[in-house]
Amino acid sequence: MLPHHALQEPARAWFEALRTRICAAFEAIEDEDDSADAPPGRFQATSWRRPQESGARAGDDGGDDGGGGGEMRVMRGRVFEKVGVNVSTVWGEFSPDFAAQIPGAAEDRRFWASGISLVAHMRNPHVPAVHMNTRLIVTTEGWFAGGADITPAAPESAAAKADAALFHDRLRAACDTFDPDYYPRFKDWCDRYFYLPHRGERRGLGGIFYDHLRSGDAARDFAFTRAVGEAFLDIYPAIVRRRMRTRWTDTEREHLLIRRGRYVEFNLLHDRGTLFGLKTGGNIEAILMSLPPEVRWP
Amino acid sequence: MLPHHALQEPARAWFEALRTRICAAFEAIEDEDDSADAPPGRFQATSWRRPQESGARAGDDGGDDGGGGGEMRVMRGRVFEKVGVNVSTVWGEFSPDFAAQIPGAAEDRRFWASGISLVAHMRNPHVPAVHMNTRLIVTTEGWFAGGADITPAAPESAAAKADAALFHDRLRAACDTFDPDYYPRFKDWCDRYFYLPHRGERRGLGGIFYDHLRSGDAARDFAFTRAVGEAFLDIYPAIVRRRMRTRWTDTEREHLLIRRGRYVEFNLLHDRGTLFGLKTGGNIEAILMSLPPEVRWP
Repeated sequence: MLPHHALQEPARAWFEALRTRICAAFEAIEDEDDSADAPPGRFQATSWRRPQESGARAGDDGGDDGGGGGEMRVMRGRVFEKVGVNVSTVWGEFSPDFAAQIPGAAEDRRFWASGISLVAHMRNPHVPAVHMNTRLIVTTEGWFAGGADITPAAPESAAAKADAALFHDRLRAACDTFDPDYYPRFKDWCDRYFYLPHRGERRGLGGIFYDHLRSGDAARDFAFTRAVGEAFLDIYPAIVRRRMRTRWTDTEREHLLIRRGRYVEFNLLHDRGTLFGLKTGGNIEAILMSLPPEVRWP
Repeated sequence: MLPHHALQEPARAWFEALRTRICAAFEAIEDEDDSADAPPGRFQATSWRRPQESGARAGDDGGDDGGGGGEMRVMRGRVFEKVGVNVSTVWGEFSPDFAAQIPGAAEDRRFWASGISLVAHMRNPHVPAVHMNTRLIVTTEGWFAGGADITPAAPESAAAKADAALFHDRLRAACDTFDPDYYPRFKDWCDRYFYLPHRGERRGLGGIFYDHLRSGDAARDFAFTRAVGEAFLDIYPAIVRRRMRTRWTDTEREHLLIRRGRYVEFNLLHDRGTLFGLKTGGNIEAILMSLPPEVRWP
């Protein structure tokens, strides 16, 4: 048995526990914002099952339908304009075409995948949007993957740079406990990944991104993935609290809505996570939960 | 010499003349809307040259830079919330990868392409959005392509169906003059093309779509393409005038903004026209001009 098989259940349980703690932390922030007329936001949960009939969604065709499902939690609040926190655990068989692109799936196309993914779009243009996900994927190989990155509306501003420095420092601390090479490698990977070639622009101010992490010590890779989740939970609420009471102008809000257009362009034109979801029977609403609530292309 | 070579200059000139007539027709509609506080919209023109250094945009790499350019005209008005009417004429050499997908380009990768493309997003949810484009592409082969289709916010409503019937009838009349098979074939092609597989939804109420039209009589194919442009110019302003004074509610407007999200998803996930533009050194602003001015994913 692969060492990753023994981690499937602990990983699934940990992703779900992290989800619960993140949702509680975000609801606590909603409670603290007493400046707004609206009531504090609360997460609403929707469970979904991977549709058994949907061979098409398991990678075009030729794939075993498999099973599993997930839970979407969405909050539309007064600080968090729209935040989705999704967990899913799905298994089945890749289509031949798709399997050829996945490590360890060329011969045996069966897969199992579990993870948490989160995107938060904030009402206040001074609070950066954020994305985080971590996951375990098992084919005939097994690996962890994930990352977290921050997207301020005005990345050139001193405040945004200060927030990004805090965010990076906390992620670097998590990385350095495991391997001094992790942070520089994963930061660089993040910068290359979250890039819009058609615009020649970065999506935001980065963070870390890692894929196919299999150091040879699966338990340690799992511990690293947990450390990334803990770092996120530690630093992002702190950044939100630093900025959530800063006043904004209509011009700043309009600029935020335009910058969100770049977020949409990246996710629909380039994001491999979106593609993976669409190819493996993920839930459409959960996959597209990352899209911002309000966007402008003026 | 291919018969299409002799048509390059007349086609370019006709696309540009059609653009001028369409812009005049749309500005006349802006003048007629005396209900709004805002002044009537006017088109603003921006010329662009295909960047010579952009080997990357000519299909990744390995392609001749070529040349050409185009003109973007955009109006942000009181009836037309955002309408872009673009003409472009570009030439160069496809990258080897991209050339393999294009008729007549496998051996000789040079191409020439000229066309008009238009997308209108309307402020009033009762006025359907519309898309139209026609073009001539020349490799070692030559062909015309194009189409027009309509996207109401509430496609199930009787009014939207009535508008769509007018739109289809006028396009059918243009088609039937040339070939009784054209309308059923091109309508069906449109329905299959403007489809969101990840949603299991059509984008709108269709129209016609045709590609690689080379009947053997290039002059006749050009005449057909002109007839499609004339049909569009005849029927779409008439549909706008039918609906532009209908009052709308906030709920109807909100529904329009959500439906526009589907338009974005289609254009960025599926539209071959967008991909062709990004691969052949098209102007980014011109290509993404099709994206709606305001969108919601609630």
